[in-house]
Amino acid sequence: MAQRSIRQIVYDTMYLQNTLAGKIFNVFLIACIVLSVMVVLAYSIPSVAAEYWFAVNYLEFFFTVLFTIEYLLRVWCTPSPKSYIFSSFGVIDFLSIAPTWVTILFPLFPSLALLRLFRVLRILRLVKLLQYLNDTYLMVQVLRNSRRRIAVLSLWILVLVVIFGTLMYVIEGHAHGFTSIPISIYWAIVTLTTVGYGDITPQTVLGKIVGAVIMLIGYSMIVVLAGVISQKFTEAKTNVQEKVCSACGGDGHAIDAVYCKHCGNLL
Amino acid sequence: MAQRSIRQIVYDTMYLQNTLAGKIFNVFLIACIVLSVMVVLAYSIPSVAAEYWFAVNYLEFFFTVLFTIEYLLRVWCTPSPKSYIFSSFGVIDFLSIAPTWVTILFPLFPSLALLRLFRVLRILRLVKLLQYLNDTYLMVQVLRNSRRRIAVLSLWILVLVVIFGTLMYVIEGHAHGFTSIPISIYWAIVTLTTVGYGDITPQTVLGKIVGAVIMLIGYSMIVVLAGVISQKFTEAKTNVQEKVCSACGGDGHAIDAVYCKHCGNLL
Amino acid sequence: MAQRSIRQIVYDTMYLQNTLAGKIFNVFLIACIVLSVMVVLAYSIPSVAAEYWFAVNYLEFFFTVLFTIEYLLRVWCTPSPKSYIFSSFGVIDFLSIAPTWVTILFPLFPSLALLRLFRVLRILRLVKLLQYLNDTYLMVQVLRNSRRRIAVLSLWILVLVVIFGTLMYVIEGHAHGFTSIPISIYWAIVTLTTVGYGDITPQTVLGKIVGAVIMLIGYSMIVVLAGVISQKFTEAKTNVQEKVCSACGGDGHAIDAVYCKHCGNLL
Amino acid sequence: MAQRSIRQIVYDTMYLQNTLAGKIFNVFLIACIVLSVMVVLAYSIPSVAAEYWFAVNYLEFFFTVLFTIEYLLRVWCTPSPKSYIFSSFGVIDFLSIAPTWVTILFPLFPSLALLRLFRVLRILRLVKLLQYLNDTYLMVQVLRNSRRRIAVLSLWILVLVVIFGTLMYVIEGHAHGFTSIPISIYWAIVTLTTVGYGDITPQTVLGKIVGAVIMLIGYSMIVVLAGVISQKFTEAKTNVQEKVCSACGGDGHAIDAVYCKHCGNLL
Repeated sequence: MAQRSIRQIVYDTMYLQNTLAGKIFNVFLIACIVLSVMVVLAYSIPSVAAEYWFAVNYLEFFFTVLFTIEYLLRVWCTPSPKSYIFSSFGVIDFLSIAPTWVTILFPLFPSLALLRLFRVLRILRLVKLLQYLNDTYLMVQVLRNSRRRIAVLSLWILVLVVIFGTLMYVIEGHAHGFTSIPISIYWAIVTLTTVGYGDITPQTVLGKIVGAVIMLIGYSMIVVLAGVISQKFTEAKTNVQEKVCSACGGDGHAIDAVYCKHCGNLL
Repeated sequence: MAQRSIRQIVYDTMYLQNTLAGKIFNVFLIACIVLSVMVVLAYSIPSVAAEYWFAVNYLEFFFTVLFTIEYLLRVWCTPSPKSYIFSSFGVIDFLSIAPTWVTILFPLFPSLALLRLFRVLRILRLVKLLQYLNDTYLMVQVLRNSRRRIAVLSLWILVLVVIFGTLMYVIEGHAHGFTSIPISIYWAIVTLTTVGYGDITPQTVLGKIVGAVIMLIGYSMIVVLAGVISQKFTEAKTNVQEKVCSACGGDGHAIDAVYCKHCGNLL
Repeated sequence: MAQRSIRQIVYDTMYLQNTLAGKIFNVFLIACIVLSVMVVLAYSIPSVAAEYWFAVNYLEFFFTVLFTIEYLLRVWCTPSPKSYIFSSFGVIDFLSIAPTWVTILFPLFPSLALLRLFRVLRILRLVKLLQYLNDTYLMVQVLRNSRRRIAVLSLWILVLVVIFGTLMYVIEGHAHGFTSIPISIYWAIVTLTTVGYGDITPQTVLGKIVGAVIMLIGYSMIVVLAGVISQKFTEAKTNVQEKVCSACGGDGHAIDAVYCKHCGNLL
Repeated sequence: MAQRSIRQIVYDTMYLQNTLAGKIFNVFLIACIVLSVMVVLAYSIPSVAAEYWFAVNYLEFFFTVLFTIEYLLRVWCTPSPKSYIFSSFGVIDFLSIAPTWVTILFPLFPSLALLRLFRVLRILRLVKLLQYLNDTYLMVQVLRNSRRRIAVLSLWILVLVVIFGTLMYVIEGHAHGFTSIPISIYWAIVTLTTVGYGDITPQTVLGKIVGAVIMLIGYSMIVVLAGVISQKFTEAKTNVQEKVCSACGGDGHAIDAVYCKHCGNLL
């Protein structure tokens, strides 16, 4: 029943998005982010930058002022400004406005063109805004649960490409574009992942055989491992609420086991 | 027992396909659609268009007359012509005959060549005719159920290619074909999806490292996400009608369990 | 206890492979097939054909005589020679020896070089010999069960590539290599399947955007449909021994249902 | 309570890694392996080898001495030196130090450059060290269980590429880069696995049609077989310990069911 202060209303609108105003604000913000990223992209096209130089700069300035006001409001309305500023999202919010201000305030700053490209990080704000969606959360959680599996998979790929890269360096050599082992490893990655640019290709008979082996390994891994990873997740899911037997201390019980499978004690 | 009117018989034949005549009509229609699309394709080959100009035009005219008669019959026999005409399938049916009539009636219509290509939309009629198959329906339903998941996946891909595209634009620059950020994003999409045309490829050491990272992300995403999406569907399925035992409160019963597997009580 | 005739022994050895002699014969046959295919492949390499002309021809003749003896024995020992000769495997066995005999008996036969390549069909004999493996049988069965699903998938891919191919033909045109709609459809297949040769690539901005859309569709389809197909098979499996209610005639019961889910009658 | 000998402590540290010293030793060893592989890779880059010749050789010598000491300690502390030396890991450990010693002791040894590349096999030691991770073990086990399925899959791919390769050799011929059947098979592998280098591409209309068919087969196999392989594993898992009810004879119970879900009898 207590009347909410303006600060509270602003907080609810900007952070919680459970009011109509919050939802409208959110949609408007997403539109601004998308537009401002498109302005950054357009600016990098030489012909557009030359012809619409003024419009592009004007829009960029407009969005920066908008995002700056938003940033200051966020800092003002949150109960703990510090935790917001140093959170990953606070840093992204800051990085998406800082480059333009540096450009305006210090026009002689070195590597200004490079700095301008930091603006593209604004797109990460989209991820932040959409993280409230359940599906994003679920996917992140599943990926987090399988990070060890992904690490093992990465290790195997690493070992494969290093060994096959070295092999191809020996077989093909400088003359056919395999000028060093790292370049050969790059080629092995391009081939194993089935990208296949074709900028470097095996020329000798033996090289083509080894290349075919890498392709088949890469192709089979998709087919076979997709199934493996899938099965693992299903399992992992089932074992979430794992029980430990109070009598023997054994674990590994299924989610709905009644008796300990190690000692027969009632769980 | 009431004698069916001709209109009713035509309706059953054209829409329901549960009679022998309906099935024959359907097969004949599919054959006509496939043939007429092939005529459109053949017409676009310069040598064929030059040599068989007359035959191709004759066939096109023949199929258009046929489809026009079919369209008029469909409008005539359906109980609600309006809802058919403005349904997505009615519009497709109309679009697949309109271009040829415009070509015949207004031979000086501008951009006639472009218009002629609309005929290829006839192929969408195949989808319409085959939608009665159970499997099509099932697949569409599964895709519809997972549209939010696909949206999240698309967002992630979008964020990935924008950030990696910008990175490559900074690293490689104009000299190596990365002439603007949008072009670099196009390259990132070509690489992440493992298509790998090879029309633009990284030339610098750092560019090749970043390129290898994108390839590995794209490759791993296939392996890992195929499992994730699969698991989600299975879950959604399983949890439809979960039962809880009224005696012991245990859950995790199969969808069709009669007795509680924990305490043996009738569910 | 009845003494087996020689014909019976030969039959058991060649067809059933459940004796030691049968297993040895089978391994020997597989080795011969692999070697004879390698001879055909080697023969097609100009330098090998020039240098080892005599050896290659000698080996080819040797294997043909061997396979001819085997073919005649198979015809002789089987109880029903007709059904063997006209079975798919009998035809393959015949086709793998016929070309060489035609070459020897009618050295002036036209298109002899083409005929010689038919010998490579011998590799299909490997499939025949390995069909006794359980896993081959299982995979074939699963593929057969899902043939309608694969047909639906193929139809969707067909519709996609025809429409996108036509679109790209309009956008890019003759100047950029998209010389006709069939060529554009070929390009769309190369892109959708993530093969990406790079022999034809979009050059215009709009063409690159449409190309990126096709790539993303092709990439997402792998991720999403792998899950869909997988789920379907699991389902299909579960319903194999479907029960029909004797009271109400309803079906669709799970494999272990006790009561009819339609009328509550004990199944 | 018995005091452990130094040899026992060294053994625990190097082999078991269950002490703090063991964990530190393991991390240090992994770092050394990664660094020494990077030195080998860097050495293959002409510019790096020329400029940092001394540093690279010094580091290589340093790591070799380190790994030699480690190897000797492992031989000394293990209870059965013979079984370690001739185990696959003992051989890898030996091969990762031998090349450098040969280079130092016999500087006139032929093909020294080739020998030096054997050092890259050190990366296999990473696999060895990480095999204690549960996930590596699980993945290896799943792959081992499905080795027959992978063999069948490989056979099918082999048959497909041999037949399609021969077909393309006939269709396209020498003029379009398909100079022999093995080269055409190489092209078929590049296409089926969706790598698509684009160094050899079909030029004729018929060749493009056959090429499109191979692409679609390769693409569909990923989608369809990922599901098949996945389902098989799930099945294999589920059927491990199936119970049958002694009262009603019903089966299909979950692995941990206590009461029969059909009749409620204790299993």
